Amino acid sequence: MWTKALAAVLAMALLAPALAQEEDGYDLWLRYRPLPQAGRDDVLRQAQAIVAPRSSATVQAAVTELRRGVQGMTGQAPADAAQPRAGAIVLGTAATLPPALLPDGLAALGREGYAVRRMESGETVIAANTDIGLLYGAFAWLRAANTGMPLDRLDERSAPKLQLRVLNHWDNLDRTVERGYAGESIWNWWALPDVRDRRYTDYARANASLGINGTVLNNVNSKPEILTAPWIAKAAALADVLRPYGIRVYLSARFSTPLELKETATADPLAPEVAAWWARKADEIYRAIPDFGGFLVKANSEGQPGPQDYHRSHADGANMLAAAVAPHGGVVMWRAFVYAAENPADRARQAYDEFTPLDGKFAKNVLVQVKNGPIDFQPREPFHPLFGAMPKTPLVMEFQITKEYLGYATHLAYLGTMFEEALRSDTARAPGGLTVAQVVEGAQTPGRPTGMAGVANIGSERTWSGSHFDQANWYAYGRLAWNPQASSRAIAREWAAQTFTREPRALDDIVGMMSMSREAVVNYMTPLGLHHIMGTGHHHGPAPWVAELARPDWNPVYYHKADRNGIGFDRTARGSNALAQYAPAIARQYGDPRTTPEPLLLWFHHLPWDYAMPSGRTLWAELVARYDLGVTQAQALRTRWAALKPFVDARRHEDVAALLDVQVKEAQWWRDACVAYFASVSGRPLPAGTKRPALPLERYKALQFPYAPGRG
Amino acid sequence: MWTKALAAVLAMALLAPALAQEEDGYDLWLRYRPLPQAGRDDVLRQAQAIVAPRSSATVQAAVTELRRGVQGMTGQAPADAAQPRAGAIVLGTAATLPPALLPDGLAALGREGYAVRRMESGETVIAANTDIGLLYGAFAWLRAANTGMPLDRLDERSAPKLQLRVLNHWDNLDRTVERGYAGESIWNWWALPDVRDRRYTDYARANASLGINGTVLNNVNSKPEILTAPWIAKAAALADVLRPYGIRVYLSARFSTPLELKETATADPLAPEVAAWWARKADEIYRAIPDFGGFLVKANSEGQPGPQDYHRSHADGANMLAAAVAPHGGVVMWRAFVYAAENPADRARQAYDEFTPLDGKFAKNVLVQVKNGPIDFQPREPFHPLFGAMPKTPLVMEFQITKEYLGYATHLAYLGTMFEEALRSDTARAPGGLTVAQVVEGAQTPGRPTGMAGVANIGSERTWSGSHFDQANWYAYGRLAWNPQASSRAIAREWAAQTFTREPRALDDIVGMMSMSREAVVNYMTPLGLHHIMGTGHHHGPAPWVAELARPDWNPVYYHKADRNGIGFDRTARGSNALAQYAPAIARQYGDPRTTPEPLLLWFHHLPWDYAMPSGRTLWAELVARYDLGVTQAQALRTRWAALKPFVDARRHEDVAALLDVQVKEAQWWRDACVAYFASVSGRPLPAGTKRPALPLERYKALQFPYAPGRG
Repeated sequence: MWTKALAAVLAMALLAPALAQEEDGYDLWLRYRPLPQAGRDDVLRQAQAIVAPRSSATVQAAVTELRRGVQGMTGQAPADAAQPRAGAIVLGTAATLPPALLPDGLAALGREGYAVRRMESGETVIAANTDIGLLYGAFAWLRAANTGMPLDRLDERSAPKLQLRVLNHWDNLDRTVERGYAGESIWNWWALPDVRDRRYTDYARANASLGINGTVLNNVNSKPEILTAPWIAKAAALADVLRPYGIRVYLSARFSTPLELKETATADPLAPEVAAWWARKADEIYRAIPDFGGFLVKANSEGQPGPQDYHRSHADGANMLAAAVAPHGGVVMWRAFVYAAENPADRARQAYDEFTPLDGKFAKNVLVQVKNGPIDFQPREPFHPLFGAMPKTPLVMEFQITKEYLGYATHLAYLGTMFEEALRSDTARAPGGLTVAQVVEGAQTPGRPTGMAGVANIGSERTWSGSHFDQANWYAYGRLAWNPQASSRAIAREWAAQTFTREPRALDDIVGMMSMSREAVVNYMTPLGLHHIMGTGHHHGPAPWVAELARPDWNPVYYHKADRNGIGFDRTARGSNALAQYAPAIARQYGDPRTTPEPLLLWFHHLPWDYAMPSGRTLWAELVARYDLGVTQAQALRTRWAALKPFVDARRHEDVAALLDVQVKEAQWWRDACVAYFASVSGRPLPAGTKRPALPLERYKALQFPYAPGRG
Repeated sequence: MWTKALAAVLAMALLAPALAQEEDGYDLWLRYRPLPQAGRDDVLRQAQAIVAPRSSATVQAAVTELRRGVQGMTGQAPADAAQPRAGAIVLGTAATLPPALLPDGLAALGREGYAVRRMESGETVIAANTDIGLLYGAFAWLRAANTGMPLDRLDERSAPKLQLRVLNHWDNLDRTVERGYAGESIWNWWALPDVRDRRYTDYARANASLGINGTVLNNVNSKPEILTAPWIAKAAALADVLRPYGIRVYLSARFSTPLELKETATADPLAPEVAAWWARKADEIYRAIPDFGGFLVKANSEGQPGPQDYHRSHADGANMLAAAVAPHGGVVMWRAFVYAAENPADRARQAYDEFTPLDGKFAKNVLVQVKNGPIDFQPREPFHPLFGAMPKTPLVMEFQITKEYLGYATHLAYLGTMFEEALRSDTARAPGGLTVAQVVEGAQTPGRPTGMAGVANIGSERTWSGSHFDQANWYAYGRLAWNPQASSRAIAREWAAQTFTREPRALDDIVGMMSMSREAVVNYMTPLGLHHIMGTGHHHGPAPWVAELARPDWNPVYYHKADRNGIGFDRTARGSNALAQYAPAIARQYGDPRTTPEPLLLWFHHLPWDYAMPSGRTLWAELVARYDLGVTQAQALRTRWAALKPFVDARRHEDVAALLDVQVKEAQWWRDACVAYFASVSGRPLPAGTKRPALPLERYKALQFPYAPGRG
């Protein structure tokens, strides 16, 4: 009888792996699925037991994660052990590790760094100066195991190059998400603080695995209520969940909050009652959240209130808030994304014009947060001219992980390559070069804080990010925030190995797809430096024809300036001269279309349709060829994915395939609509051998998307 | 080596059940978890093999579900077999079953009925007249197996008592859900029709398991776009997924659609161009969805357009639409929920006043859809006086499954008892009685269609319904739509056995909690017939003091009419005389407070605070006692659940416990705020021994919930 029962249990249990093969993506890159035999043996040899010092919640999280990982990868749970021994993973700090296991120079790894090393004596040591370093080290070991590194030779040291590695959630208090394409906000504000969704813990695990150590919970287009007692309590409940994972909570503050709550008569940053209100508010927040990170502020931008409403400067506003949080160790991240309808200057110029005069005027705990490019998260932009141009001010890089302008969560577009392109750009602001990454790492501002912000693509959907491949953009952001000089290709490989398969050929293919995917989007949406020709408001689909919006700089025609004679935005000295905001070497090089990198040609130059491109084609023929190339590339993504079917579980393979079908369709739509429009404007026939757009231009113009997602 | 590998696989597999114990609620009542030994043996004996006739998608769904169920419950998959034999489940119709296995009188079970019977010869026969009957029969067998019925004596016949068993989704095209407390709409409109979320199939399975055979995809507050080509394509994609499960798609139509789309110059139902437009539109829809169910319409109600805008009647409007869908076999469900600000009559009267004169004037394929009570889904209402009062018109019962007025998805309130109370009410419209259920079943309208509609509580959240216990309300609705005379207690037991545990004592406790839960809500929110004293707009929390809204009938004070002297809405002949809309026997009985059922006392009567209640208390003391009882009952729910910890997996137990904590807190808030308010209005001291409210009344009045969910 007992045998029969056991047999039944075994039989049932055996079904489990078969069912488990249907993956829904919830587990992200922390899947810990059974390894092939060799990998399993390797893990089992190194992780027979875990030795951990004492039990802070953070160390507990590290041990739990190691246990979960080893169990998942091998089917066997490691034992607890009190003393280091061969075959054990030993976590510890200088205070707890036996001298023989203590790595040299541990102190140099700082507050968050870690060393992971397999000793000759058979122990694997995870060493750090703090508990959070141990957690990061535990994730590093799991990543190594998951990606098939030889664990018996492991010797890795790492410390983050930036101090503040932060997600920006554009999540509203009603649980919508501005520019969110992955469902609702993961913050169930209504149920907080009483109900703490288990998803918050998984969010913390995923972020900690990348080293992300801060999260701004709410939209930069903020509301006064977020700073009232009920919402502080909600934020505090989240902070309690995130704290063991080394993640601090920040809030976006609306500059006019005290005025709108009717608790002051003005929001003037120089009015003593205003400064006093913010100081009291900071005290109240820190009572609830002792490690509160600080405020993120969008001021005097796109209708948000700010210090300029009172004829004060951005520095006046930021410094007043900074004084409120300074006694508690908090910071203010002040966004440089400002542009005004009443300002007739080229929108690309405005942030630089407003902020460079303030360099040196910000308080010590203020960071200025700058988008990667001077317009707004386009598929391709040159780097923002503020990088390198505010040598006395710490600049936070702001990337957008959610794909507002790159096909939502529908299109496969790996952003690692885009982030890398921005970070590796040379500002030419120092002899021998000064990359954007170096600026962000604080090369110009030693001793001041450093940071990177990523506008999150995380929502309530089961996949977290709206699609399986969009998880890679969260991953890549996190890894680049840890090390802005990392390789986007290596990151892609690391992610794909953990997420899909370790089979090397399949991995090559997936990484290849990812590496070309963003370029494909650039080609079928905005080739050769075109930008901001998307649909109005929702930014979905092509709309280069839009010309009637209230603000000139909301209209696509403002950006492409195409007419009978030519196309492109002249930002040289003959035009808006935005180019002068760059270092002289760059201004010189980009001042001539012949020496301007082709991908940015029409960003900086207005050129005749007949302009001769290096390819030998006219500009017009080149433009059409690029659109065609984009479609071909989208088709190639689909074809290559189809061939990967044997390597990916059926469900996720099907999920991705369905989206790639849409991507091909929408790439074709982009190409057809843009080619039809530019043909009509230029009055030129299609280059020989080119396919006609499927529909007349008017049909593309008539398309409406009143219920597009991401309005927030 | 092979042995070692096998051992590793087995070890891993063995972990699975342990992990699986953490349930997140996604599987609903279709969990198919391993049975205890006796049950497993029983299932294995009866389900060694499955014999199915031919493979329509519907039969395939039945076989797949049986296979999934048997495998889940026993760990063993049944074999496929070509010929009936002992120990096999044999599915078939009169055309395919061997005569020896054919149940008598199968034809009488109609298009959707089924017979499930274990034969002496050892086969279990699932017989029906159609494929969908076979699917329903398969679910019936699985339900029996899951709830521990003796499968070797199974002999069940069942046919639905209503023809149209329909969910109404109040889901908007932007994916918000009006009165939705379970995340976004499950319809990912944006991704449709290209991406068909697997959740749609699970939705279909869950509904088919209850016999729900229709779904209105979009909000009754409808938009013109739903009837344009892109949205018809999205609805058609959903219809394709749902069709094998016997579920037809319906759409809510906005009456002014052709006018708003600028395709007609009017929406007057008697204008030929309007009728022609709708006929063409119906043709277009039926080309995409050949089994389209028809239209649901909210007209001339709460600002929605309708035929009265053109001085036409509801019948004129409904019949025009009915003519458009009639050639295709479609129906129109026309809502009777109408009330107008400009009408000074008691809001509870208005539907009856408007609709009874139209009895007999509706086309054959029109059903009038009537809410269970005359106001709006309150925790308790008397049955709607239209039931029994329109003997020539088929009336669809409209229940609200989502708990707009009963604590959202936070409070545990099993609605089975509430639905049952309405259905079992005697309209007294026939000698010997005529219950609401009988009216809905068509006792007065033989040969005409019958139906029930439930406003869905389904959303994108992992639990589907926002909480584990709210799944029971979906379940109870479905089972009552199949058989409006079923017992809510038996349904609760059946649901809980499948959802939580089959342990009889634990089951008794869970069913006990469910059975008292709605009464608890009535007591702490609106005892003794009070109604509509919730917060403005969002309907969250107490707000009996609200008096300043534009429409008198939006104000709580309109409904309770409390003042220094007394409380309650006089609906007798001395008051609004809404009571005269009921049958004379009821009007007589309820005309006197002494013979009015206590739960409805203040619904029909305005009484002095000193009115002597049967309990011997004054009305004032009774009211306070009821509020106190409600709090005590909420506390009892929490205590009883805590004791159930050994019987429920840790995660779901914790999820429910967290919500019960909130429920106790909010019950106390309701009690305190209402007692404080009515004490202030009546000028009476608290009855002796009564606790003072925790806060002064002004503090309750000051509470604001600007971001409450469910706005849609």
